[in-house]
Amino acid sequence: MFWTFVEAGQIANGQVVIEGKKGHHLARVLRVRPGERGVAVCAGREYQLEVVRVEGPTIVARLLADRPAGGEASTAVTLLQAVLPNPDFDAVLEGGTALGIQQFIAVQADRSVGHPPPGRLARWKAIMESAAEQSHRGELPSVAGPMTLPAALDQARGRRLLVLDPAAPLALGQAVDGSPAYAIAVGPEGGWTEFELSTLHAHGAVGVNLGPRILRARLAPVVAAAILVQQP
Amino acid sequence: MFWTFVEAGQIANGQVVIEGKKGHHLARVLRVRPGERGVAVCAGREYQLEVVRVEGPTIVARLLADRPAGGEASTAVTLLQAVLPNPDFDAVLEGGTALGIQQFIAVQADRSVGHPPPGRLARWKAIMESAAEQSHRGELPSVAGPMTLPAALDQARGRRLLVLDPAAPLALGQAVDGSPAYAIAVGPEGGWTEFELSTLHAHGAVGVNLGPRILRARLAPVVAAAILVQQP
Repeated sequence: MFWTFVEAGQIANGQVVIEGKKGHHLARVLRVRPGERGVAVCAGREYQLEVVRVEGPTIVARLLADRPAGGEASTAVTLLQAVLPNPDFDAVLEGGTALGIQQFIAVQADRSVGHPPPGRLARWKAIMESAAEQSHRGELPSVAGPMTLPAALDQARGRRLLVLDPAAPLALGQAVDGSPAYAIAVGPEGGWTEFELSTLHAHGAVGVNLGPRILRARLAPVVAAAILVQQP
Repeated sequence: MFWTFVEAGQIANGQVVIEGKKGHHLARVLRVRPGERGVAVCAGREYQLEVVRVEGPTIVARLLADRPAGGEASTAVTLLQAVLPNPDFDAVLEGGTALGIQQFIAVQADRSVGHPPPGRLARWKAIMESAAEQSHRGELPSVAGPMTLPAALDQARGRRLLVLDPAAPLALGQAVDGSPAYAIAVGPEGGWTEFELSTLHAHGAVGVNLGPRILRARLAPVVAAAILVQQP
């Protein structure tokens, strides 16, 4: 069973047509064949499909049924993630997408190693779309940046703001208060600088820890997302 | 600041002597020098050290103070992990150790890809020791196997037994009942077979899910461990 994201324009007359790169991926890489079932997600709805024709890189499927998409977390989580060297940043996007993060904002932190070029955003979106399909998300998360910490904080307004800080006395789980939306800032391998921490606190951020053990920079955001998203 | 595990025999007369492979790693790879501080963990205690001499691959440090080791989770978690192809299994050991898992048991599951040779255990222990040092654990976790599922279940007796099953109606967080010790069985990429699930249930396992999204085999145990270990 395949899982894919489509645009509204691809759905018409009880059919979905998938072509181009995505059609190629389904037809050539996943070897989808007539009769096979799958799901196309579009604008918050899941469409159950049965493939009727495969013509080169074009898949034509008929709609069997549709319903509201069910793969989304009830808690909206934004991750303000400091840029990490690869493959760590890619791993955070992949794991975070599978866990249900709604919005990624890449932050060029003082201790970030690497300066992703602007073209990196397309690569990040491709990684996230692939992870969203594999994990059966009901919505594609968004990604923006890299940008400065103040610019990222501007974009994360209106959410309960947390900052991961091993020196903070409060455990992440204890900072969960039933808010519908969280933004959590996770630093690079060397952590946030004192100046960055004071910027975060000036924006109302609450410092939280993930326990007494030290987690690698690529693991910490995934663990934080798991705990926030699992909140009922 | 370095963090290392030592045997009781290495501590005598207010000094710790670290030689061999571990001394080489500290002296040559981490370039520890006289005057540098660190921690040696031994039998549940943390010893604060100051390096006094570095002679080739041998480190001599004096004890400054000691106290009970603080890096352990209050919840004891055993992971019955189906064998995964590398690098996934190694990543589970590394992440799970950093998160605080106490005991790993490798299970040769029906759908496991790969049959680790007996010599693999030494490699697994090396990965776990390195992760335990990086994460500042207060104790080295243990690892056993690979073994059959019934043999693994024998070794995990006396703990609240859970099995990760995307079809289970209960969320992992809801299965946490204040037990001091959990064992959680996590399958390979294709999941546990029906027969394996019935073996687990016959041993009293409670099925749990990690939400509506599908997690890769290498991510699921890390997320499960994060949720179990974070329990107060």
